[in-house]
Amino acid sequence: MADGEFPAALEELMELLRKLPGVGRRGSERMALALLRWPEDKLRALGALLTALPETVGYCPECGALAAAGERCRICRMPGRDRTLLCVVEEPQQIFAIEKSGQYRGLYHVLGGRLSPLENRNGEDLHTDSLVARAASGEFREVILALSADVEGRATAVYVGELLKPTGVRISQPALGLPAGASLSYADAATIGAALAGRRAM
Amino acid sequence: MADGEFPAALEELMELLRKLPGVGRRGSERMALALLRWPEDKLRALGALLTALPETVGYCPECGALAAAGERCRICRMPGRDRTLLCVVEEPQQIFAIEKSGQYRGLYHVLGGRLSPLENRNGEDLHTDSLVARAASGEFREVILALSADVEGRATAVYVGELLKPTGVRISQPALGLPAGASLSYADAATIGAALAGRRAM
Repeated sequence: MADGEFPAALEELMELLRKLPGVGRRGSERMALALLRWPEDKLRALGALLTALPETVGYCPECGALAAAGERCRICRMPGRDRTLLCVVEEPQQIFAIEKSGQYRGLYHVLGGRLSPLENRNGEDLHTDSLVARAASGEFREVILALSADVEGRATAVYVGELLKPTGVRISQPALGLPAGASLSYADAATIGAALAGRRAM
Repeated sequence: MADGEFPAALEELMELLRKLPGVGRRGSERMALALLRWPEDKLRALGALLTALPETVGYCPECGALAAAGERCRICRMPGRDRTLLCVVEEPQQIFAIEKSGQYRGLYHVLGGRLSPLENRNGEDLHTDSLVARAASGEFREVILALSADVEGRATAVYVGELLKPTGVRISQPALGLPAGASLSYADAATIGAALAGRRAM
């Protein structure tokens, strides 16, 4: 579609929408045309939320999770958490996945990514200084490195583990094994190997 | 994911994004988290475009196509169009599909939908009064009803055709036939039937 077929404001809108993940040319057109039919107050609400985003949403000064700007996150503020357990994750949204499991009641620390030579992301880009400081405070009895079970995640775990070692804190990693509900027939060899190596008495 | 896991402003943003076509819960999360990483000026630009949309984008007073608010659309303003030919379409964006074909140099008229008993959409919801007025003006030598080739589109064509008859204007419809590049083996019977009935001498 050649430039200028839509009114200029609509073309600009489509161009910005196209920068969102999962939105292509067609998707941005459908969205822009749908937005045209939104009532004015809803458009204004969305516009205001976007404009104010940098002032309304920020990161928890303690753990780096998403939080209302200038505030500690929901979990750091929550009473009844085990404040001697620290779980390290790559990205803020992974906290929600762990919370959903209902198996963890400790605190979190967001690394803000993982080592990725391909994306030119190395140790300095991760929030490791604050992690080492927290671990060295003596407040935590254990640090769980809940990083992805792929090559980059494991490299990151090794790297972070090395940084934490001098603090003397106990370091652990989640178990590798068959995903719940999965058939052995469809599991890959690496998963089966890990599950067998980590087998437990019944 | 339970309520309140994200900061309130982010939850609100996700809820609004979820109202866009093709955006589900997961998509809205990915988008909101991506927007968090946008630079402030880009967020502000998107916010301003959305807020201003009702004032910046409107419909052409002549043909009903999308246009800068208060202005005639690009095609109605374009010199060199054949102003004696009128092509009737259901939705504004269909104009772009026809323009891309490069086969049409006349003007357009947007009905704003089509007859759809299931969606409770009948004749009064369509811009037929203005169409009949344009046809009756005597400026057009032919009106092409470029409506969809499905049941609702054809019902709409019959309905609009009846309304136009008293004006005496010549009325036509695009040919039905095999889509360009399509194999006969994969065409449905209705398409093959229409293509054979409309066969032309070589």
